[in-house]
Amino acid sequence: MNLSELKYNEDGLVPVVTQDARSGEVLMLAWANQEALEHTLSTLEGTYYSRSRQELWIKGKTSGNTQKVLGVRYDCDSDAVLYLVEQQGPACHTGKQSCFHNPLMEEAGHTQLGFVVSEVYKTILDRIEHQPEGSYVTTMHKAGLDRILKKIPEEAGEVLLAAKNSDPKELATETADLLFHTLFVMAELGVKPEDIAGVLSSRMGKSGLRGPKPVG
Amino acid sequence: MNLSELKYNEDGLVPVVTQDARSGEVLMLAWANQEALEHTLSTLEGTYYSRSRQELWIKGKTSGNTQKVLGVRYDCDSDAVLYLVEQQGPACHTGKQSCFHNPLMEEAGHTQLGFVVSEVYKTILDRIEHQPEGSYVTTMHKAGLDRILKKIPEEAGEVLLAAKNSDPKELATETADLLFHTLFVMAELGVKPEDIAGVLSSRMGKSGLRGPKPVG
Repeated sequence: MNLSELKYNEDGLVPVVTQDARSGEVLMLAWANQEALEHTLSTLEGTYYSRSRQELWIKGKTSGNTQKVLGVRYDCDSDAVLYLVEQQGPACHTGKQSCFHNPLMEEAGHTQLGFVVSEVYKTILDRIEHQPEGSYVTTMHKAGLDRILKKIPEEAGEVLLAAKNSDPKELATETADLLFHTLFVMAELGVKPEDIAGVLSSRMGKSGLRGPKPVG
Repeated sequence: MNLSELKYNEDGLVPVVTQDARSGEVLMLAWANQEALEHTLSTLEGTYYSRSRQELWIKGKTSGNTQKVLGVRYDCDSDAVLYLVEQQGPACHTGKQSCFHNPLMEEAGHTQLGFVVSEVYKTILDRIEHQPEGSYVTTMHKAGLDRILKKIPEEAGEVLLAAKNSDPKELATETADLLFHTLFVMAELGVKPEDIAGVLSSRMGKSGLRGPKPVG
């Protein structure tokens, strides 16, 4: 694919959807001309075309809220582009993480696991760093790694009991507890959610999912 | 916010980014006029304006690949909209899940946990249903729930050892194993990844993260 083959509109622009490569959050929708796309691909800095200023716009050049581009894709009819980025700071000029922060409607309780895990993980890291009083993470972190690790088999046992009791609601709760403490251990050792994603992804081969080990 | 206050372009349209509410995958970019947005909000069917056919386009009306809308948001300058949807079947007319399936560049190994978990979970469900020969999931499923459950404390123990050995790489691998088997148990009991997201999310209160339990 040559960039000149994309279907630009009458102003020579394509819409670009920008997504956080870690959390999956959709951060913004902006526009790019061919020059902006070339700049993005050659520098891996999220680059757009500012329609108001009528110039190339390297995101974060003035604010510092830059985007390291990990992926660029175009759609089936070649008239829209997706950037997957590591966003430094907030993407929105209002200080919000995403520009899409105004709800017109929102069904209660719907949440993306990837997004929530990312938020929980960031919060744990923040609590470990700043150790606010009264925080569960602060208390456990101060008590030491063994104190946190003890929770893993404990929560694992509760997952077993919920499953044996055929209690889906309890299973969801206990799995969340297990996941939370696993994220806590990961945060203590500097392992990131995307590292886990990488391992799981490498097991999804051409023939689909491979088991973690040969089964004897 | 009245829908008439959105900033439509000279053709009376705004770009709409459509995201899978479960996996976080960006599915498509299309356009909507005010009528399409009103139809989406009142029926919760993903509705757009087809620029080629110049008419209202209720996604999936002919293909069956409908979208149940769980959220609608607009961006900071009111000129773009985000739909969060439960997509029936593939979103793309090519049969691919997402319209954004053509890579211009892709850094090796970057993956979103939410997306991978969603894929792994779907694959486990599929293996449980079709029981293909030689599949790890088939073998374990046939051996019964206890056989799968036994793996949970086993993998939990391996997480502990990796952490005590200060081995981040091993910790990532063992955490992936633990997560995989937890998803397997969830699939057996009909608990979905978004159920776990819901529990974790309910613990992220106004003051940020709350611990799973009071710490004694």
